Amino acid sequence: MKPNFSLRLRVFSLNCWGIPYLSKHRADRVKRLGDFLNMESFDLALLQEVWSEQDFQYLRQKLSPTYPAAHYFRSGIIGSGLCVFSKHSIQEITQHIYTLNGYPYMIYHGDWFCGKAVGLLVLHLSGLVLNAYVTHLHAEYNRQKDIYLAHRVAQAWELAQFIHHTSKKADVVLLCGDLNLHPKDLGCRLLKEWTGLHDAYLETRDFKAVSRFYISCKTLKTTIGRDPHSGTPLSDHEALMATLCVRHSPPQQDASPTHGAAERSLLISVLREAWTELDLGMSQAHWWATFAGYVTGVGLLLLVLVCALVAGGGVREIAIMLWAPTVGLVLGAGAVYLFHMQEAKGLCRARAELHHVLGRARDAQDLGPESQPVPLLGQQEGDRAEEQ
Amino acid sequence: MKPNFSLRLRVFSLNCWGIPYLSKHRADRVKRLGDFLNMESFDLALLQEVWSEQDFQYLRQKLSPTYPAAHYFRSGIIGSGLCVFSKHSIQEITQHIYTLNGYPYMIYHGDWFCGKAVGLLVLHLSGLVLNAYVTHLHAEYNRQKDIYLAHRVAQAWELAQFIHHTSKKADVVLLCGDLNLHPKDLGCRLLKEWTGLHDAYLETRDFKAVSRFYISCKTLKTTIGRDPHSGTPLSDHEALMATLCVRHSPPQQDASPTHGAAERSLLISVLREAWTELDLGMSQAHWWATFAGYVTGVGLLLLVLVCALVAGGGVREIAIMLWAPTVGLVLGAGAVYLFHMQEAKGLCRARAELHHVLGRARDAQDLGPESQPVPLLGQQEGDRAEEQ
Repeated sequence: MKPNFSLRLRVFSLNCWGIPYLSKHRADRVKRLGDFLNMESFDLALLQEVWSEQDFQYLRQKLSPTYPAAHYFRSGIIGSGLCVFSKHSIQEITQHIYTLNGYPYMIYHGDWFCGKAVGLLVLHLSGLVLNAYVTHLHAEYNRQKDIYLAHRVAQAWELAQFIHHTSKKADVVLLCGDLNLHPKDLGCRLLKEWTGLHDAYLETRDFKAVSRFYISCKTLKTTIGRDPHSGTPLSDHEALMATLCVRHSPPQQDASPTHGAAERSLLISVLREAWTELDLGMSQAHWWATFAGYVTGVGLLLLVLVCALVAGGGVREIAIMLWAPTVGLVLGAGAVYLFHMQEAKGLCRARAELHHVLGRARDAQDLGPESQPVPLLGQQEGDRAEEQ
Repeated sequence: MKPNFSLRLRVFSLNCWGIPYLSKHRADRVKRLGDFLNMESFDLALLQEVWSEQDFQYLRQKLSPTYPAAHYFRSGIIGSGLCVFSKHSIQEITQHIYTLNGYPYMIYHGDWFCGKAVGLLVLHLSGLVLNAYVTHLHAEYNRQKDIYLAHRVAQAWELAQFIHHTSKKADVVLLCGDLNLHPKDLGCRLLKEWTGLHDAYLETRDFKAVSRFYISCKTLKTTIGRDPHSGTPLSDHEALMATLCVRHSPPQQDASPTHGAAERSLLISVLREAWTELDLGMSQAHWWATFAGYVTGVGLLLLVLVCALVAGGGVREIAIMLWAPTVGLVLGAGAVYLFHMQEAKGLCRARAELHHVLGRARDAQDLGPESQPVPLLGQQEGDRAEEQ
């Protein structure tokens, strides 16, 4: 690549609000989205909430002259809702499904059934390796009392780990999607500190990760894409359009020890915060598992009693009537128990990984590995042995 | 690194058969395993089927002087059973849980409850980056009629993809574990062709992946570690011990076009075979989902009938007795439906990724991308549109 090389990349990202039967004017909006993408001819269009595979197939057909490469990321029961259209050939594709994604009994929230994931595309553009990620994290239904906070933090951590481990040979790393996070939220900070990614929205000029290249965000626009006739928007979310410019980076300036130390201390502080949040989530998961375990036990006792009553011939009719709800109780509570056991395991796994990174960051800060293993992370002395 | 540099790596891998309450002489075997690992002082010990976290904690404590770094990979309801002990500091840790892992209603097989996974450790040894992977794939209960074949092939593909995407900057790639695969099995060939890994057991001298280094397996021994007094072995599996030697590779010889073409044609053939297997699995998953969907429908109709009978006051007693099994039928069949929908999505995802790799491999073979998209993959014309 020539030293004075520069690459312009036009990117589009939208949460399409494509819920079959529920999202208003879906067919019309999908059609207009196709027209818009064809007209604008972006390098990459990364979409979320394309829940219906028919919508994807429709777009694929409509967009194939402008965007010859396309991929739909399938997962879970409903799907991840993620898809991508690219003007350039896609070299490699893979995906990672998040371990934790809400609760199956929260049917009206529905996230659990979706199989939220992160998709990865590897593109080779003018000799550069571009890793483009598209994702959709768990929705935030109540910001004041967010019961999904631990899950979203765990998802942000898994996303950060996935990017960290799969982008080691990438020259440009691009993450698009609906993170359901404000810029100052824990998950967003965790993601930025661990991957080194910058927020194109906040830093429209200086945006990027790896050292050999310098990426700036030349333009960043949002649109609701209102229809001139009916006035309906493209989605219930705004679309984001960015023009990125990739150039050779100027000689390293930011590798000064002070800069590194400041970055590390930011990383350590956000890792600690995430650790605490996951620990809290773990305690809750354990509480629910224990509670469901007790209810299962009580249900089993009741079942024995009911069977004894039926066998004894005493209050047979009542016993028969009680049999069904008792079996239901045992099975239901048993399922809840197993679910929360798995939730606790998932949170514990993320916490252990965080702990490891934290240990290494602290080592690098020359605090010495033995001095205090995780002194500021929590009062849970008993848990410490589980950490690594 | 000096040109005449060489690194010796002593590795231990064992499926420990550590099922609480069920595995015989577990406590004694774990104790002896600890003694053995301490005595041998390997560089890395990668264990499978350490289902009890207490066993891991016991080993961690016992081994900490010889192996200061350790990690337990948590996942699923029971856990992945994977753990690792290292003489060297572990730089990075992450894991990937397989999307498909058997059926929850196969309780007596139990794999689904385990959350089978692959764990990754990144180590820096004498300036080399070593990626060590440990995994355990779905068990094979009946080789003649293996109902888990599609799941194991999908797992092998996910494992290959995980290694492929996370090892791009690694100098040495090491995979240990219990793959439940014979060397010529589809999953094993898929793994080797897509990652470029070699089998240390089969190729004791020439074993490896990346181009800059040359890895040979100096010694490969297996042991059942029989106790001299009681005669009990360490596990129901044999332990594998290897001494690997990493050196600078001799000048490239194997990059000839003929060699590349031969490799590519092997890759294409194994990808095709895996595609067909996954496609078969998908058809079965769809069949089960459809069947369970119909049963759910019938159950709902029955439920309406039973409710009408109860309301009408006709054969009330029988209706009350039928109510419980009918609700059970609806819930049970509904759960089976959702499960197989998710199974089909998981298999479809792996198939789409395979399809993409196949397309690229064929392009490289200069067959031209448009000529025949996937002519040999199957007769499922209708499915083709879903592929990418």
